[in-house]
Amino acid sequence: MEVIRSKSNRLIKDTKKLHQKKYRKQSYLIEGWHLFDEACQAKAGIERVFILEEYVDRVVGDVPVTVVSPEILQELADSQTPQGIVAQLALPQATIPDTVTGKYLVLEDVQDPGNVGTMIRTADAAGYDAVFISDKSADIYSLKTLRSMQGSHFHLPVYRVAMEELLAQLKEQGIRILATTLSAQSIDYKEVEVTGSFALIMGNEGQGISPLVESQADDLVHISMPGQAESLNVAVAAGILLFSFI
Amino acid sequence: MEVIRSKSNRLIKDTKKLHQKKYRKQSYLIEGWHLFDEACQAKAGIERVFILEEYVDRVVGDVPVTVVSPEILQELADSQTPQGIVAQLALPQATIPDTVTGKYLVLEDVQDPGNVGTMIRTADAAGYDAVFISDKSADIYSLKTLRSMQGSHFHLPVYRVAMEELLAQLKEQGIRILATTLSAQSIDYKEVEVTGSFALIMGNEGQGISPLVESQADDLVHISMPGQAESLNVAVAAGILLFSFI
Repeated sequence: MEVIRSKSNRLIKDTKKLHQKKYRKQSYLIEGWHLFDEACQAKAGIERVFILEEYVDRVVGDVPVTVVSPEILQELADSQTPQGIVAQLALPQATIPDTVTGKYLVLEDVQDPGNVGTMIRTADAAGYDAVFISDKSADIYSLKTLRSMQGSHFHLPVYRVAMEELLAQLKEQGIRILATTLSAQSIDYKEVEVTGSFALIMGNEGQGISPLVESQADDLVHISMPGQAESLNVAVAAGILLFSFI
Repeated sequence: MEVIRSKSNRLIKDTKKLHQKKYRKQSYLIEGWHLFDEACQAKAGIERVFILEEYVDRVVGDVPVTVVSPEILQELADSQTPQGIVAQLALPQATIPDTVTGKYLVLEDVQDPGNVGTMIRTADAAGYDAVFISDKSADIYSLKTLRSMQGSHFHLPVYRVAMEELLAQLKEQGIRILATTLSAQSIDYKEVEVTGSFALIMGNEGQGISPLVESQADDLVHISMPGQAESLNVAVAAGILLFSFI
């Protein structure tokens, strides 16, 4: 069995480029068995598997398998513990449907990959229909986002959008827009009655939602905080709201 | 004004040791103006300030100030952007009060510093009275935990405890123990009525709560998830429960 051990191998060098967003046009990488199993189940377009020799028998089906040394696997992975497998998947080309109806989470310019991944995972757990993420938010196909997302992008569609267009579409189709603020001037979430289709918008970690979103929202919502902390982590706030509104 | 520019300076070398838990017996480091301002407000025992020359005038009061070069400040800090200040604070020696009454968050063996910090911040926001954290949980005085905690340890006491002793004390004093599980066999949190004093226990990221906690809890609680994700991030789950129970 051929085992790639050289970092200067052309395939390894090309694959490693997928760590950078600019090269993730067609494909992206995942690491670890949990995500790989989810990818198989979701028929997620597995293009190639990089694997340690000892695990070769665990991969079944018609997929190109490249056996690599532990050092090379570490090169391709991002975490300290890639658990013996890195896989290259086809990047889904999600097009926003013409008609939207259901429960949606919208992320406006959320910067931290961990926050983006955690919020998509939470929306999945809470049974939301899709997530829209603004073009200035963190990329969902970085290994860091993928780690915190835990495979939720295989369960629900994640659409990358321009906020103006999304807001126009939501408005046109009569989807209620709930946007979260830090201001106590808005409505406390416990007093919000939610029925039918809606989109919950979470803003940037530092700045919150944009003036555009604030002006377009049907309801501005906050979480009353009886304690002394000035704010909540955005992913925690999203969790409280997402579960409160189902 | 003397400016320290050498990494081999004795004071810098000694201070840098505080990045390691084993050296944090008496003191710990914080970074950035937000935490420093909170520390001043909380009268948190500031032992020394390391600062860039341009910010010297911003530090008032009777505290030793050491001016350092940007390279040295970076050495002492952990983040990419320490914002011109690192301060050394006295480590609080918190002793658990003999009588506990109120609302508490308990972390059992939570490994990730970001999760620990975020949960303490959330408990602070929700107005809880204190946080108990098991001796196997991540250290709260690491720069990473401190960053996600955002100064909440200045607002509410955080006690490091042995779980057995804490559980015995809670039992003896009749404090209701709510422990979170991943099992749908337990009660959904929306059906739990909470009044009076209680302690909410969150378990380890992978394993959840220990068999000991499970056997001692008055109520085992879970968050029903209508979607496909297998679990929630522990800090998100804590946020949902902490705000639901106030």
